[in-house]
Amino acid sequence: MNISLILIGSELLNGKIQDKNAQVLSRISFLHGLTLRHVFTIADVYEDFEPIMKIAQDQSDIIITSGGLGPTDDDLTMDFMSRFFNKPIKVSDDAIQVATGHYQRAGREFNKEKSKYRFLPLNFTPLTNPAGFAPGMYFFNENKHFISLPGVPREFESMVNEIVLTKFNQNNKLQKNIIIKTKGLPEEALFKTIAPNLWNDLAQLGSVSSLPHFLGVDIGVHISDSNPDILNVKEQQVMSIIKNSPIVQHIWHIGPESLEEVILAKAKAKNLKISFAESCTGGFNSHKLTQISGSSKVFYGGVVSYDNSVKENILKVKSETLAKFGAVSNEVAMEMAVGVNNVCKTDIAISTTGIAGPTGGSSQKPVGTVCIGFSDQLAIDAQTYHFTGDRETLKNRFSLMSLFVLLERINLHPGNN
Amino acid sequence: MNISLILIGSELLNGKIQDKNAQVLSRISFLHGLTLRHVFTIADVYEDFEPIMKIAQDQSDIIITSGGLGPTDDDLTMDFMSRFFNKPIKVSDDAIQVATGHYQRAGREFNKEKSKYRFLPLNFTPLTNPAGFAPGMYFFNENKHFISLPGVPREFESMVNEIVLTKFNQNNKLQKNIIIKTKGLPEEALFKTIAPNLWNDLAQLGSVSSLPHFLGVDIGVHISDSNPDILNVKEQQVMSIIKNSPIVQHIWHIGPESLEEVILAKAKAKNLKISFAESCTGGFNSHKLTQISGSSKVFYGGVVSYDNSVKENILKVKSETLAKFGAVSNEVAMEMAVGVNNVCKTDIAISTTGIAGPTGGSSQKPVGTVCIGFSDQLAIDAQTYHFTGDRETLKNRFSLMSLFVLLERINLHPGNN
Repeated sequence: MNISLILIGSELLNGKIQDKNAQVLSRISFLHGLTLRHVFTIADVYEDFEPIMKIAQDQSDIIITSGGLGPTDDDLTMDFMSRFFNKPIKVSDDAIQVATGHYQRAGREFNKEKSKYRFLPLNFTPLTNPAGFAPGMYFFNENKHFISLPGVPREFESMVNEIVLTKFNQNNKLQKNIIIKTKGLPEEALFKTIAPNLWNDLAQLGSVSSLPHFLGVDIGVHISDSNPDILNVKEQQVMSIIKNSPIVQHIWHIGPESLEEVILAKAKAKNLKISFAESCTGGFNSHKLTQISGSSKVFYGGVVSYDNSVKENILKVKSETLAKFGAVSNEVAMEMAVGVNNVCKTDIAISTTGIAGPTGGSSQKPVGTVCIGFSDQLAIDAQTYHFTGDRETLKNRFSLMSLFVLLERINLHPGNN
Repeated sequence: MNISLILIGSELLNGKIQDKNAQVLSRISFLHGLTLRHVFTIADVYEDFEPIMKIAQDQSDIIITSGGLGPTDDDLTMDFMSRFFNKPIKVSDDAIQVATGHYQRAGREFNKEKSKYRFLPLNFTPLTNPAGFAPGMYFFNENKHFISLPGVPREFESMVNEIVLTKFNQNNKLQKNIIIKTKGLPEEALFKTIAPNLWNDLAQLGSVSSLPHFLGVDIGVHISDSNPDILNVKEQQVMSIIKNSPIVQHIWHIGPESLEEVILAKAKAKNLKISFAESCTGGFNSHKLTQISGSSKVFYGGVVSYDNSVKENILKVKSETLAKFGAVSNEVAMEMAVGVNNVCKTDIAISTTGIAGPTGGSSQKPVGTVCIGFSDQLAIDAQTYHFTGDRETLKNRFSLMSLFVLLERINLHPGNN
């Protein structure tokens, strides 16, 4: 099934707000084997809305609008839908019931005499919003699904997840998504050289998709069945194919979780404390882990040792090591990791020192060079890598590589339980 | 003038790549007084391209495509444009000349027998690409401008900047954009309460636009004139209106530079060294400054003291202070700032300690509380702020507020010159 997404809101076009919902929908669609065919961003103007809706309903099975459902005068999506389908806006008992539930959840009373949320276009049904007050709207017309959702990213995402699992599960089939995250091989090597039968084998059981990243590839397998036992068998078959495939050694996680989430969960399970000594990544590793709630149980602290004096003063990197090998060296990376591990009193420390550019490179140590060190009870070591890209890209790649090193050290660690 | 942007590429719809060009174009359009009316994201499929192009040329004056200009078989934009306008693709001397220049710049030879870049649809002109090999394309038809640009963000941005300054300067007028960045007042207070005549006064001289952010508003004034002397007079008049307006005390910068760029430039000019002690911002402040090339001249280092033991061990925060006032307190924020200033041997240190949530709040210190401290030769102090939002939003707001505190401390500092 094809999806067209229509983002409605002048604030998305004048630089005031950056849309997040297209990315969310593309990811959820990918996971559920649906195809996002178009994304249209338009202002709150009916003349712009109408021609886009015509294309969307011509070319897609599911048309989702985002935004314009709030209570203020510039929230016009209900008017647009009403006008487009020639369905007058009426007071709706169903809408009142859904909105009343939203208000009750927040301990507030719904004003069914005054609130805009009491209305719906004729023949539309309200959709429960698990994360806000404004109900969504659903309309089924000429075999097409029209879904209007709030633009607030948290509300949009929770409603998309709910809807995809219920509305587009038309045959009442049970569904499951298996995400296999790999590292170290490009997409072509994975599916053409290493495991040439893998895609076809998996495709016998469900719909397969592949999402390449820098350093790795995610493989999605979407399976469904009306019988829960058969669904379980299919899942076991997928897992068996994966585990007997030559890609198994490249898998770092099976599931939808991010690298940061996997790191925190595994470290927490082993009761490990983590610290970072960051030079070229400039605090990005610490920032990434602390984006996740609960990270404080595992992540104890970090030192951003941008200047060499900070490497010496806090991390106790020796001035002779800096002088002899240079700041970007495996030797300094190791001393940084040892230093931060000592001062933060942690179990595993990871260090990064490199050249993100655009200046600072040399023929021996070009821009893109990074030394990643680690220190834990099993070993102290460092390795040098070379990447390409502009400053922002390189910082991303340095950070990603160092988090994979961290994951490997966590996997090897016997734990403190 | 209205712009429609058409982003072409299946990889933008299946979650593989997140588009950056729409945001870039919306920002540049805003600065130049142009209106971005639509953004369309479509796959590399002519059936999807054609109806969108029809809407775009009906409703906009400038139609920009992004992507699909590269050398491989799935780069189809030239074919799409050729087919849409019924202009056959031919070998073009102009295209060969432009592409040859691109290759010469990189010290490579252009293969004019084989390269795809030797072609153009009839009556199209090539556009120089300052940052890559693929030329852009320009076509003027029925009073509409059709511009095809590469999708690579760096190439797209440099070409948009070039084109906006040349092609849409039709009357050969000279242009200037004056960006006034303010802080501390919402848009409505700024233009309705504090300076009710400001917008109209500025609008006499050029086109005015306003871009609200969290904590402040950017005001853009776009002036143009064919006479450079008159343009200068207009600029002086804008500056005079601004400087005599009650908003002047809320201005933190005049120019397009970001807060981080202004901080680094001002600190460098005063020869100041900076450090951060970050708890709730978790390394985000350090990450933001180190995104900018040359930051190492000013930013010496930071400590991410997520666990209290790190606050004590590295920053020498007293255990009594932690016990008496709690980790989220002005007292701890001050000791953190003093500690990081000492250990990094810097001139100005900024600290953050707060509750980003969703857990960890209390009735006295709810989620959204942040204490921001500073330490420099003039003063040691801290202040508590309260913000709202989810964890990610709060981290952003804590960080932004603390960088504004840093800017203020830099402005007050006498400098080391």
